[in-house]
Amino acid sequence: MRTGRVEAFSDGVLAILITIMVLELPKPAGADWRALGHDVPVLLGYLLSFVYLGIYWNNHHHMFQAVRRVSGGVLWANLHLLFWLSLVPFITGWMSEEWIAETAHREAVSPVPVAAYGVVLLLAAGAYFLLQRTLIHAEGPRSRLAAAVGRDVKGKASPVLYVLGIGLSYVAPWLGVLVYAVVAAMWLIPDRRVERQVAHREDELQTEEG
Amino acid sequence: MRTGRVEAFSDGVLAILITIMVLELPKPAGADWRALGHDVPVLLGYLLSFVYLGIYWNNHHHMFQAVRRVSGGVLWANLHLLFWLSLVPFITGWMSEEWIAETAHREAVSPVPVAAYGVVLLLAAGAYFLLQRTLIHAEGPRSRLAAAVGRDVKGKASPVLYVLGIGLSYVAPWLGVLVYAVVAAMWLIPDRRVERQVAHREDELQTEEG
Amino acid sequence: MRTGRVEAFSDGVLAILITIMVLELPKPAGADWRALGHDVPVLLGYLLSFVYLGIYWNNHHHMFQAVRRVSGGVLWANLHLLFWLSLVPFITGWMSEEWIAETAHREAVSPVPVAAYGVVLLLAAGAYFLLQRTLIHAEGPRSRLAAAVGRDVKGKASPVLYVLGIGLSYVAPWLGVLVYAVVAAMWLIPDRRVERQVAHREDELQTEEG
Amino acid sequence: MRTGRVEAFSDGVLAILITIMVLELPKPAGADWRALGHDVPVLLGYLLSFVYLGIYWNNHHHMFQAVRRVSGGVLWANLHLLFWLSLVPFITGWMSEEWIAETAHREAVSPVPVAAYGVVLLLAAGAYFLLQRTLIHAEGPRSRLAAAVGRDVKGKASPVLYVLGIGLSYVAPWLGVLVYAVVAAMWLIPDRRVERQVAHREDELQTEEG
Repeated sequence: MRTGRVEAFSDGVLAILITIMVLELPKPAGADWRALGHDVPVLLGYLLSFVYLGIYWNNHHHMFQAVRRVSGGVLWANLHLLFWLSLVPFITGWMSEEWIAETAHREAVSPVPVAAYGVVLLLAAGAYFLLQRTLIHAEGPRSRLAAAVGRDVKGKASPVLYVLGIGLSYVAPWLGVLVYAVVAAMWLIPDRRVERQVAHREDELQTEEG
Repeated sequence: MRTGRVEAFSDGVLAILITIMVLELPKPAGADWRALGHDVPVLLGYLLSFVYLGIYWNNHHHMFQAVRRVSGGVLWANLHLLFWLSLVPFITGWMSEEWIAETAHREAVSPVPVAAYGVVLLLAAGAYFLLQRTLIHAEGPRSRLAAAVGRDVKGKASPVLYVLGIGLSYVAPWLGVLVYAVVAAMWLIPDRRVERQVAHREDELQTEEG
Repeated sequence: MRTGRVEAFSDGVLAILITIMVLELPKPAGADWRALGHDVPVLLGYLLSFVYLGIYWNNHHHMFQAVRRVSGGVLWANLHLLFWLSLVPFITGWMSEEWIAETAHREAVSPVPVAAYGVVLLLAAGAYFLLQRTLIHAEGPRSRLAAAVGRDVKGKASPVLYVLGIGLSYVAPWLGVLVYAVVAAMWLIPDRRVERQVAHREDELQTEEG
Repeated sequence: MRTGRVEAFSDGVLAILITIMVLELPKPAGADWRALGHDVPVLLGYLLSFVYLGIYWNNHHHMFQAVRRVSGGVLWANLHLLFWLSLVPFITGWMSEEWIAETAHREAVSPVPVAAYGVVLLLAAGAYFLLQRTLIHAEGPRSRLAAAVGRDVKGKASPVLYVLGIGLSYVAPWLGVLVYAVVAAMWLIPDRRVERQVAHREDELQTEEG
């Protein structure tokens, strides 16, 4: 099978996930800037999840550019990843709603929704790793994809940091969120090696086609 | 007509169906793990429907790879399938909400929503069969599609099992759900014969194009 | 501009419209078949709108197959059509909710939401006609599109029937719905002439390309 | 990287944003024309945001037609634009709900949601400008894109008018909305220069390919 329809379906699911979160943003309870200000934690939670889904789309996009064909196993590994990512809006909504409800009642913010957010990130990272393995297995250890992924330092550091964030949520919830934000920032820095590999490959493809 | 836009539209609808279900997941009523635990039946119901829609996307994808052209009749047979699949989020929501409401009130779980879930699966399976027939009719009995579909053991076993699941819902609702889960597991096993046929066809197409 | 991205965007919007209506289906108020039975008018309203949006996607698909290029004017005529179609879920929800609320209170069903549904259908039909005119104007009166559209009997009969349906809503709301259902049924019959024209054109294109 | 998947993802997000707003339209509180009439400010707010998102899709479409390749920086500049546009449904909902709640209670309409709407438009315009700069930087100052964008009078006038609209919201909220509507009308007029450039380029591409 060609990769076209898998990419199109994944794009569709990710585009929907990244946008339906706005449907869950609670309208400010009033018509002044202060009411909007109370929504700031919710908006920041939305921003964090938007960035994470953007990173997954970005990495997914990059990875599939180095893939030629997909098997049935890849389709399911891909759906498995999409399943965990589909829980991002749910867990973001829970974390945000509890956060504003507790601060509105001047209670301490509960660590559990923040830790659960990290658990979903951890499982999504595991699913991405599994998809990458499945693809490399199909393409072969000497494939361009295997070369492009390389040592994958970021991919190995992320789960460790998610576990750290989950733990720190119990010290102070904002610390957990801070760790998740740091991981997101780490991924925002473009991965020059993959881009170089892909550029190479496209040049070769054009040479083959030309 | 080429198959491109039918596939794109179906991908779009299936991508939306598989993701909008998360909008219906009720936020846990509290900020601890126990509150999240109460949502487990809802999350399992979501998982089951996610897998079913994934299977339909997967099979739809496979089937259309063996199709060259579509007629007006195919468009409507396809929309008919999408209609029944579009009821999956609705019926999943009903089943899940009743399930947690009844267990929260320590009542017996009602069989009707579980049976109704099976009825929607049954009607979707019927619509898929109809679409397959329409396509084989158009492609001809000696077409690659007809060969790829073959005896279609799974396709014939599924409706029987759905009826069994509907019946067993009245014995115990969890038995009905178990049967639906078994059918889903049966479909998750990749269908090697179709993949082989498709691989053949792509090779031939490339030979023709080359 | 090529037609690819206009078609993709329209497919996306129509796929979303046709599926988000399920989010508005009210869950049955109870766990038995009777509770589901009370939802039947809502489900029929959903079915009617699903069929209408399916018809628009179908006709849109057919029409753009006979189009080679799009101008800025076409983009806006297309968005204009999508705007009126985007009100279908809104007006369907209003009609359905009032219908079941009024029958639940044993009141007479109000004609206004049914008439308003017809008004949206009428405006969407007008927008489709405008888009068709814009496209024919761009392609020229001797184009394949102009030939394919031809006398367009259905297109001219529909607005007249919508006005009839709007009027009959005031006699009895179910009469109005019946007229809308008849128009939908009329469109479900495949338009052989257009298909023949498109088949012609594809053959020619292939001859040109070959 | 080719532009295909960035365009597809952006189309997906914009198609979802433009349509999910209908889910937020409050159903009329009654079954007569007057009840529908009370929703008119909400429907006009929806129309305004629909037109704005349509304009962004339109301009995005035009701009990427003059682009050959995208880098990692472009992907993030594009996601940044989509983030601000994703807040349009949220801010439209807030503005509309406050507007009808206040007029229902015969209170003065509050300027803050109207001003906040302008702030989101301003930030989206800034993000679009940034994306345009990133693309021109990658394509080079003598590229077709740079030529097509040219002096970009509309792009420079819009932020000034948004600031004017934000200020006038405090004089009278409807004045702010009027300014936003004027900017939208200004963009609806097709930009002949870009279309001409694109037409040129397509002719050249065809000559190259031919």
